[in-house]
Parts: sequence; C-alpha cells; structure tokens
Amino acid sequence: MKTLPQYAQMTERALQSVLPERAQGGVPKLLNASMRYSLLAGGKRLRPAMLLGAVELLGGDAERALAPACAVEMIHTYSLIHDDLPGMDDDSLRRGLATNHVVYGVGQAILAGDGLLTGAFELLLRDALEHPETLMERVRAAGEIARGAGVSGMVAGQCLDLDCERGRKGGEDELLYIHEKKTASMFICPLRAGARLMAADARAVDALTRYGRAFGLMFQAADDLLDAEGDRAQLGKSVGKDEAEGKLTAVSVYGAEATRGRVDQLLQEGISALAPFGGRADFFRELILAMRGRSA
Amino acid sequence: MKTLPQYAQMTERALQSVLPERAQGGVPKLLNASMRYSLLAGGKRLRPAMLLGAVELLGGDAERALAPACAVEMIHTYSLIHDDLPGMDDDSLRRGLATNHVVYGVGQAILAGDGLLTGAFELLLRDALEHPETLMERVRAAGEIARGAGVSGMVAGQCLDLDCERGRKGGEDELLYIHEKKTASMFICPLRAGARLMAADARAVDALTRYGRAFGLMFQAADDLLDAEGDRAQLGKSVGKDEAEGKLTAVSVYGAEATRGRVDQLLQEGISALAPFGGRADFFRELILAMRGRSA
Repeated sequence: MKTLPQYAQMTERALQSVLPERAQGGVPKLLNASMRYSLLAGGKRLRPAMLLGAVELLGGDAERALAPACAVEMIHTYSLIHDDLPGMDDDSLRRGLATNHVVYGVGQAILAGDGLLTGAFELLLRDALEHPETLMERVRAAGEIARGAGVSGMVAGQCLDLDCERGRKGGEDELLYIHEKKTASMFICPLRAGARLMAADARAVDALTRYGRAFGLMFQAADDLLDAEGDRAQLGKSVGKDEAEGKLTAVSVYGAEATRGRVDQLLQEGISALAPFGGRADFFRELILAMRGRSA
Repeated sequence: MKTLPQYAQMTERALQSVLPERAQGGVPKLLNASMRYSLLAGGKRLRPAMLLGAVELLGGDAERALAPACAVEMIHTYSLIHDDLPGMDDDSLRRGLATNHVVYGVGQAILAGDGLLTGAFELLLRDALEHPETLMERVRAAGEIARGAGVSGMVAGQCLDLDCERGRKGGEDELLYIHEKKTASMFICPLRAGARLMAADARAVDALTRYGRAFGLMFQAADDLLDAEGDRAQLGKSVGKDEAEGKLTAVSVYGAEATRGRVDQLLQEGISALAPFGGRADFFRELILAMRGRSA
C-alpha cells in the first residue's frame, strides 16, 4: 500500500484529467473555471485516499479505482461550496483562499456545486459502463457513495446542523447525529465503496464501516478542538468563529477536556476496528494517528 | 400507450412512495418536508412522461420504468428550487405557490435541492441493482440522465443564462445554446433514457433525440411568448418579469411574430422526427401539439 501523499498525488492527477484547464465536451469556460477553483484548491484528499486504500488493502489496484475516488472528492468539494454560501455558513475564506461565491458570485457558486455533484455521478456511471467486467461492483460502489452523500447521509447532517444554527435547541443527541451524518458518512462511504469494488465480504465491509465512523467522529471532534483553541489562523479561517456563532460543537457540548478524552477513545475504536486485517491495515492505523496528532 | 394524465398519475403515485409523508430511513423531517413541498407541488410531469412514453413506444412496460421517471422529475424539481434562489432568478412565486426558500429559508432550500439531486441518483442506482437482469440497460439510462442534467447539459445552460443576466452580452447564439442546454436537455435525456432501458437501436435513439430537441426548443419559445404576452398571471408568476429584467428570451431576440413562426417550425421538426415510428408515436405527436396550443 501507498502513503497518504502518494494517494493524494494520484488523485490530484486524476482530478486534473476529469476537469482539465481547457473546458472540454461543451462545458462552459466559466463553469469549468469555477468548479476547478474549488476542486483543485488543495486539501488532503483524505476521502479519495480512504477509497484507494480500501481497494489496495483488499488486494486490488488503486489505479483502476481513480474514477470513484475522484467522484468522492467532487462531492466533498460541492458540499464545501454550498456550505460556505451566505444562506448557509456564510464563510468568505476556506483554506486561506476566498470562497467560491466571493470569487464567482452566489449564483455561479450554486451552479459550480450542482455541476460537481452531477458530474460526480456522470463520472461514476461512465466509469461503470467502461468496465463491463466489473459493472455490478462499480454500481454497488456508486450506490454506497450516493447513500453516504444523500438525504440519509451528508445532506441529512447538514440539514440538522443548519436547523440548530437557526435556533433549534441541540444537545448531545443532535451533535452525534450531525457528526455521524455530516462528517463520518463521507469517510464511511468511500471505504465501503472501495470494499464493494473488491466484492469484499460482510466482515470486511463491517470492519471498514466501523473504522470510518470512528475516524469521522474523531476528525470532527479534533476539528472542533482546533477551532475552539484558535489554531485556525494557519488554516485561513477566522479564529473562534464557531464559538462566536453559538454553533453546536463537541467543545460546546462536552467541554475541551472531555472532547480530548473523546478523541482518544475514538482513536482506539478506529484502531480496534482494523484488527481483522492485521498488519496489512497499517496505512489506516497511521492515518488515524496522524489525524489525531492535528489536535494533540 | 397511455395519455399524459395517465403517465402523470403513475408518476405522482411513484413519487409519493419515493418521498412518503412520514420521513423514512433516517431522513430528517424538515428535509423530507422541504423536498416534498416542491416535488409534490403539481406540474405536468412532462419529463417522466417522455421517459415512460419512450419505453412503451418501444414495446416495454412503463411500470418497470417508474424509478428512472421519478429520478428525472426529482432532478427537474431541484433545478427549479435552485433557480428560484436569491443568488439566481430570485423568484418568490412558482406555480402560484411561495417558492421553497420563501417557505424554508435559503439554506434549507439549497439543501432540499442538493437532497433531491443526490436522491435521484440514489434511486437510479438502487433501481439498477434491484434489476440485475437489466443492469446494463439501467446504468446506460442513468448515464443519459446524468449527462443531460450535468455540466454539458442543464447546468451548462443555467451557467450561460445567469452569465447573460449578469451582464454578458447575449445574442442568437447564446439564446440557442441556453435553450438547448437548459431546457431541451431535460426533455432529450428522459427520451434517451427510455430508449436505453429498451436497448433501442441507434436509429430509434436518434429519432427520439431529434424529437426531444424540437420539443424542448418549442416549449421554451412558447414559454417566452406566454411570458411576454402577460398570460403569466394564471401561472402564478409575475407578468413580464423576464422582459423587465432584460432577460435573454426568444421574444427579445426574434420578436413575438418571428417567435410564433419558430414555434410552428419546431413543431413540424418534432413531428417529422417521429416518422420512423409511424402511428405508434401518436402519443408524442399529440403531446407536442398540445404544448404548441399553450401559446397559440
């Protein structure tokens, strides 16, 4: 198996060919530019790495899974563009750069998000048709991605998150629901998609699901800690913004100290889930350790 | 073959089970309600009827094509919700009802649209997996829908449309591009999807594509005429809004008289395209005649 930077580099290269600098196939230049602006603005490419890593863990070839890996990143990117909009979080900075709607206007940013989301499924379906020998596996993988991103997955989490920001009283139950749906879903679904591509058995799918859930919840709790502790400046986001807005976060519900304990507990849960794979899963062990380190 | 009201009724029933009144499967109540508000707000269900009609024209069973028909309507509905947003057309009325964002707020309306779009692909993929005996045909049909709705289809048209509203100088070329992509794509893709479900030959796919293109362009030109002539009140939209905003329409480019001529020409093109099907295509002949009647 490869390292995170290697998977990230493979993804980067593949994304460049999915959305080349010169718009292709009748895509308007403006739409192409606005989608590329956010899709190619860096990022750790964690979600595609989950998919590619799962494929290699199960004995497959990551090169043959680049299309679904790109689709997951396109969906993640659309969700960031829409999340940053004035009607949502109203953020003007993301990863140190002006957000999509600040550069292209609100209307074009909505369309860039819609285009990336639809484009992800266009890519998944085209890829499935181009590999008739693994059509069923690829459709199952696409189905996992759709479910994780959809109305009982990521969009569900965003809905409740927004509802809580708009005045719904939220406690621990709501927080857990939001973190599970909004954040963990998008780590679980690429892992499950990778497993489906390899026609993995239920035990492997289940183990990867538990790892993805722990990873996602830990990732979000660590993120909430970083924000509360004001280490945000380097990430190009206003410090303490969540707190100032009374947003429901792990820190607002549990306090910083208990959140740190929770991060460690989730780290252990994630590592335990990998037991069935033995030493072959070291990539995923190192990945969750590295993410925990962000907030240590 | 059935009539438009019969196809519409089949679609209505199927949509009710796709999004039942009581939210199911972990979908938040608020999200479910906001998606239902727009999805079940009436409408002629023309796009699903195109798909169901194509299936029956080619000898298939419309009942077995309801999932892709619903997916097309979900995509159409998401596009209306996003199109009505303040950053886009900023409309407060649609079909005589308050638009989604007026009722649920801008953020939830964005999410309702995202949920319908993702949900459409979730439905298409689940349906394909539930019919392994026609998996390839269903994936091809889903691919047609993704392409028609995507960055070289509907979203492309909306991008140029918005760009022209925001100051880009548009003439006949831009108008044709916008009407082809934004409107005709979403009639062509369900027709092609129906043909793919039936594994139709290239000649049938081509004939239906030409019919869909003529239908879509005629539909949009007739719509522009209705708007310019102030027959909008009954549709619950402000009269002459497009004109007041300097929007690029068939009437603003050709004038009302030439637009009427163009409607008749497109009607003939649509009917000619159906020649290979003989009398079996009467449903589609009557449909385009009925739509022409709206602006007669």
